[in-house]
Amino acid sequence: MTDGNGRPARRTDAAVEAILARIASRALAPGDRLPSVRRFAATLSVSPSTIVEAYGRLEAEGVIRARRGSGFYVTGSEPPPLALAEAGGARERDVDPFWVSRQSLDADPSALKPGCGWLPAEWMPNEAIRKGLRALGRADDAILSDYGGTRGSPALRRLLLARFADEGIAVTADQILLTGSGTQAIDLICRLMLRPGDCVVVDDPCYFNFRALLRAHQVRIVGVPFTPAGPDLAAFERLLATESPRLYVTNSALHNPTGATLTPQTAHRVVAAAAAHGTTIVEDDIFADFEPSLSPRLAILDGLDRVIRIGSFSKTLSASIRCGYIAARADWIERLIDLQIATQFTGPSPVAAELVAGILAGGFYRSHLADLRRRLAHARETAADRLASLGIKPWLMPKGGFYLWCRLPNGRESAALAQRAVKDGVILAPGNVFSVSQSAGAFLRFNVAQMADERVLTVLRDALKGG
Amino acid sequence: MTDGNGRPARRTDAAVEAILARIASRALAPGDRLPSVRRFAATLSVSPSTIVEAYGRLEAEGVIRARRGSGFYVTGSEPPPLALAEAGGARERDVDPFWVSRQSLDADPSALKPGCGWLPAEWMPNEAIRKGLRALGRADDAILSDYGGTRGSPALRRLLLARFADEGIAVTADQILLTGSGTQAIDLICRLMLRPGDCVVVDDPCYFNFRALLRAHQVRIVGVPFTPAGPDLAAFERLLATESPRLYVTNSALHNPTGATLTPQTAHRVVAAAAAHGTTIVEDDIFADFEPSLSPRLAILDGLDRVIRIGSFSKTLSASIRCGYIAARADWIERLIDLQIATQFTGPSPVAAELVAGILAGGFYRSHLADLRRRLAHARETAADRLASLGIKPWLMPKGGFYLWCRLPNGRESAALAQRAVKDGVILAPGNVFSVSQSAGAFLRFNVAQMADERVLTVLRDALKGG
Repeated sequence: MTDGNGRPARRTDAAVEAILARIASRALAPGDRLPSVRRFAATLSVSPSTIVEAYGRLEAEGVIRARRGSGFYVTGSEPPPLALAEAGGARERDVDPFWVSRQSLDADPSALKPGCGWLPAEWMPNEAIRKGLRALGRADDAILSDYGGTRGSPALRRLLLARFADEGIAVTADQILLTGSGTQAIDLICRLMLRPGDCVVVDDPCYFNFRALLRAHQVRIVGVPFTPAGPDLAAFERLLATESPRLYVTNSALHNPTGATLTPQTAHRVVAAAAAHGTTIVEDDIFADFEPSLSPRLAILDGLDRVIRIGSFSKTLSASIRCGYIAARADWIERLIDLQIATQFTGPSPVAAELVAGILAGGFYRSHLADLRRRLAHARETAADRLASLGIKPWLMPKGGFYLWCRLPNGRESAALAQRAVKDGVILAPGNVFSVSQSAGAFLRFNVAQMADERVLTVLRDALKGG
Repeated sequence: MTDGNGRPARRTDAAVEAILARIASRALAPGDRLPSVRRFAATLSVSPSTIVEAYGRLEAEGVIRARRGSGFYVTGSEPPPLALAEAGGARERDVDPFWVSRQSLDADPSALKPGCGWLPAEWMPNEAIRKGLRALGRADDAILSDYGGTRGSPALRRLLLARFADEGIAVTADQILLTGSGTQAIDLICRLMLRPGDCVVVDDPCYFNFRALLRAHQVRIVGVPFTPAGPDLAAFERLLATESPRLYVTNSALHNPTGATLTPQTAHRVVAAAAAHGTTIVEDDIFADFEPSLSPRLAILDGLDRVIRIGSFSKTLSASIRCGYIAARADWIERLIDLQIATQFTGPSPVAAELVAGILAGGFYRSHLADLRRRLAHARETAADRLASLGIKPWLMPKGGFYLWCRLPNGRESAALAQRAVKDGVILAPGNVFSVSQSAGAFLRFNVAQMADERVLTVLRDALKGG
């Protein structure tokens, strides 16, 4: 018996059997995606059309079903929820990109958090926030209870415009959108730009939550080796040429986790290469206010054409008052507004945006930043000295911010060290959560503002001794 | 010349030419997705393997590129951003699901908004919010400046647990996750459960932003006709059997836009049908606090097994203090936490959650709701009488809430009416923005709390006269 194309129907039968066997053995579970037609044809050494027929027959029998634009899935009564974690269980699971976030956010108050990504509460401008809250108690009813406009507080957007103008970017009001947080800003951009399977370039190492976020978008994440001057340019240009990535997501000012700063030459070549290959750059400026002076910035060189700038006030003002922003081409902002309405209805709380605008407007914020920078410079020196006493050495001394990216002595593995330290109430940030290539196992990221307690060093010393 | 399978290579050439012609004529633009192999094979009357070869050749030439799991796309230097709107331009564009949101959110202060989905600012408990803000001025530093835990304020989650217990659902603390808003709650669930091309059932009519949100998830949206007793059961059961939808998204308490309430029989059969077909239900309870007494609820019948409850305080407390919640199976909540970290870092601002918890904790909220219900009952009667004088009749008289879903006289079309009224500073909500099948053109949704100004009726009367 043959089909219309003269191919033995037996081959189709064999392909159908192969799938059924995989389902029976749970190699393919309900909700799992079947291999692509091409890949499975190669696996079975048959033509793609044989697989198309086999899938068609299984679909007709209700064993698998097609999802438009996304392939075939094994049917079954259980929905297949998206699992981002590499293992189950919040606390016991592997050291994946969520490990540091969950450990730090849900730490009990007695825990020490040299691995976390924020300043201690007592370093934050709490008196200014209290004053702002009292002032809000006298605000108009509309600020207190309405949704606010789709772009967010005009007062805060004007302050951002003025700041960008100082840096040399002429931005108009329709190029700024306020969002619920810096992370939400990047997420909205990913929703606009990415489809499952797209390629995105990040630095290796990069902020671990870029990895988690991109995984949620089901894209292919490729790392570019990061040097003290910025991304390795030869590797970056090669990746752009071979992988046609849609996005390059980076922090250029006080890079997370390394604390590095772009050189002007690197910045220039990154912008040029991205333009040549049609790659959009998302530049996360969240640590920019910690810089002693403005370092080269991709968004400034590019004038917000192919570079999108995002930022927030979580690191310098308050992480509790959630508010971020996107600065980009006006036509992209227009589409981002629709996406924000669809997925969040409105961006930041008007109360939050008003509070932030009130604090930024005065001279207070500038002097608060100057204080923070002074205090951090001192904490950085102290932390580096104390870590040196354990043989832990910074990869470079950053010009600002609160991170020190450090190499452990004697090829020690940081994930094991972190698993051990957490039992002693010290939360560390092991290198590989930042590394797409998993090549940073010998590193730890330290937050110098969270190392005042002697116990951090004691626990580290014990953990390093502990074999 | 033939290929290895004995098929003339000429057919592949012809398929390649056909694609190139479409690209040359801009029928396929850079960033557009190519037809599926199967569909294009049918279009050209060739075998699928011919198309697989043609696409492979075009890919090798860099004309198109595969995105893993999502088909082939035309390459080009411009990225293909996701466009949710049916037409460009915020104000002038068609009456799509974003029309009401954007008109209402960005309305100038003199505009009247009988089409919007919230109470006037002066109906909201502003004094309680002011008091709450002053109290926050005395809160711990950690509340004011830290991110807070991954699940959100324990105080607010405890209050929700107590409320659910009163309604007869035994929920544990690990079954509740706080989110930045009700919309974000549904969005997170969609991210967990849906993949592009999946089928989702909504009521027809339904809240317009469900349509916008689901469009952002690139799923297939199917409407079930809505009756005064809830979804049409025969149609619902048929849809579940034929379409295998992953989700059914609905508001059962004071349905938006109709104001209808589920009957116990409908509620029971909806839950049973969803369980039988493996469809998860998302029950948006955002208007529940406006009910005079608890109506049948899917989450209660089901005990939060396959039904996920979401809600927020935007309608009764403040839309500016953004805070929503998800109540669901603990294993789903665990995955939703990862998704929330990845895409937003944390959920609601601790300041916002603390403020909401403070207001809910006292006896004030209960008496505020009683006041609102009394005031709304009066406004509902008045609005219905005044609309009747124009021949505009409610589809049913709701038991609570602020909506009246009304039919226009003489088969008048509400989109044209809304386009006209907006020029006179009155923002209406035309029926088809709520309708997947576009069968509600004769309806308008009125917000009875936003109709005190005589000008609403004057503009409506003029618009109805105006041909």
